[in-house]
Amino acid sequence: MVQPARVGDTVDQIETPALVVDRALFEQNLDRMAAATSHIRLRPHAKTHRCPAVALQQIARGAVGVSCQTVGEAEAMVAGGVRDVLITNEVVSAAKLRRLVDLTAAAQVGVLVDHPAALADLARTASALPEERAIDVLVEIEVGQGRCGVSDPSDIVALARAAAAAPGLSFNGLQAYHGSAQHGRTPDARQTAIAGAAVRVRSALAALTAAGLTARIIGGAGTGTLLLEARSGLWNELQPGSYVFMDRDYRANTLAPGDPVFAQALHLYATVISAAAPGRAVLDVGLKTVAVDSGPPDVDQPGWQTVRVSDEHTTCTVPAGVTPGTRVRVVPGHIDPTVNLHDWIVVVDSGVVVDLWAITGRGSSA
Amino acid sequence: MVQPARVGDTVDQIETPALVVDRALFEQNLDRMAAATSHIRLRPHAKTHRCPAVALQQIARGAVGVSCQTVGEAEAMVAGGVRDVLITNEVVSAAKLRRLVDLTAAAQVGVLVDHPAALADLARTASALPEERAIDVLVEIEVGQGRCGVSDPSDIVALARAAAAAPGLSFNGLQAYHGSAQHGRTPDARQTAIAGAAVRVRSALAALTAAGLTARIIGGAGTGTLLLEARSGLWNELQPGSYVFMDRDYRANTLAPGDPVFAQALHLYATVISAAAPGRAVLDVGLKTVAVDSGPPDVDQPGWQTVRVSDEHTTCTVPAGVTPGTRVRVVPGHIDPTVNLHDWIVVVDSGVVVDLWAITGRGSSA
Repeated sequence: MVQPARVGDTVDQIETPALVVDRALFEQNLDRMAAATSHIRLRPHAKTHRCPAVALQQIARGAVGVSCQTVGEAEAMVAGGVRDVLITNEVVSAAKLRRLVDLTAAAQVGVLVDHPAALADLARTASALPEERAIDVLVEIEVGQGRCGVSDPSDIVALARAAAAAPGLSFNGLQAYHGSAQHGRTPDARQTAIAGAAVRVRSALAALTAAGLTARIIGGAGTGTLLLEARSGLWNELQPGSYVFMDRDYRANTLAPGDPVFAQALHLYATVISAAAPGRAVLDVGLKTVAVDSGPPDVDQPGWQTVRVSDEHTTCTVPAGVTPGTRVRVVPGHIDPTVNLHDWIVVVDSGVVVDLWAITGRGSSA
Repeated sequence: MVQPARVGDTVDQIETPALVVDRALFEQNLDRMAAATSHIRLRPHAKTHRCPAVALQQIARGAVGVSCQTVGEAEAMVAGGVRDVLITNEVVSAAKLRRLVDLTAAAQVGVLVDHPAALADLARTASALPEERAIDVLVEIEVGQGRCGVSDPSDIVALARAAAAAPGLSFNGLQAYHGSAQHGRTPDARQTAIAGAAVRVRSALAALTAAGLTARIIGGAGTGTLLLEARSGLWNELQPGSYVFMDRDYRANTLAPGDPVFAQALHLYATVISAAAPGRAVLDVGLKTVAVDSGPPDVDQPGWQTVRVSDEHTTCTVPAGVTPGTRVRVVPGHIDPTVNLHDWIVVVDSGVVVDLWAITGRGSSA
């Protein structure tokens, strides 16, 4: 891939479309998260950035490691120097389980389970691991989003017991992540969702205790709800991702008093390639450079309105005076799948390119 | 990137999520397109596949070259052996114009213009090119989709005249592509849209003729409308892309009698990673492996219904008996941005992997 800029370029020399991070705002986001979570384990989610350079800065500020969503993402993080990865997802194929086991040679590795057959496959693959390389297992419990995770406390206990008994595995606790709660627009909506999740966590913990099992870790939380989980007295390891860069969808949440405020630290830089009709301009950004699952992106410029996004174009209504070559900054609706469309993050400070971070986990969805 | 399969693997050994092409259906699509366009120039659009291995097979069946949407895509095609590329888009930055000029060392290169200032920049950058490397210029005209392209015949003539006069450039004709017409669901809707486009083309041609200018090429058309343009007596170079693989969106079009029928030759192979609740299963396919701008993908399996797509998950309602490890085939809603999320196309024949094609243009949106 052609790099979109070189260190020392001015922002106007960055080749578009390109992801551009404002270093000061990015570091402010990391600092604010570190301050908000200083009393609790932080395991930021690498699915947002897939970029070891970002992960290492999170860890330098106190994060215990990173969360990943796929084995490939974890491989990219470990190759980039991260030494503690939790895959906050189920892993099922024989080849992926072998890759997971291989990762334990270089890092502390954890993974989720929510099904006895999948756990049995994992246990078989990991059975020869020495104790110091044992894979941490969290039992994923369903806390209200209707996706992965076990509901019945007796099923949770059975999985925990099987993990605890398996050579090569170590039962480490529960994963209790409520994805849809992150985007509850009001503090009340988010509070209600996490209160519901807490009821499920308490019931699972009671069942584990009754069975003589200890959950060392209760993992979950995201950028939208993390203080709610942190204050619950239940969760003790938080996994927010989007706060590093932010997006329009998260910024549409109304914050509660005391919530940390994260800035839009990443923009997609774009250039007008066509302005052939009055009041209309077409940007060089499209479905292959910005994710639209949360709606079209916003243009960070007064009087601009996005009308339509196609493969390589975003059509906008614009004020007079816009010509081909006009450059603008675009705010993505949803940051994680947008970052995954790119190979590089251009880092700027005071209008100058100061670094380029390779998104080495880009495309690592297997 | 880890390759998702090796030649000789059975389909069940392909690591998911992965793009998988059925070779027989793919070749049938290419053959049917070659037959349908045997009397006219075919310049298939590489934005669908970004894969030189596919482009070379299209050219082997008679295509004159390929269409590209970006300079990076054209670079990938030329690096892969294609010798004739038309960028069916406006190119504006100084660096991209230099890359465009550089490409003429290895290929016949064409590009669109729709603005005098952008044409002047192009002409300046190309001015030193020897005649045999001159860049073909098509003036893009607006034919009803409200995106790029000039409307006023006198503006069209002015651009054509300037291109014809510029050393290093060669005025070659008009680009008249109607994107939204491709997805008109009924033959009538598509016919009406292309009839409207034809009115604009005729008017532009009359103005060019009156000015003593000749449009050698009238380019445009896509998988949804190509016979309409071909029969118009106006268009003489067709640029369909999606027909090689197809997607749910194109298959939702009702065909007119005589329209070529293209098969769904590409599927996204997926695996169930979680089936913890009755009637629900979660696939290892998400926003980072399938584009959802045309809605969630379909699962090619009776009784399965997609409910929600998140970053790395597709939640489905499913019949009884589905367990982690169950494998299914998924039909993407929109093929172009889906292919761009992957690095490899796995080619299968009779249930066995026979080839892997690298998507070397993946991510080449600059």
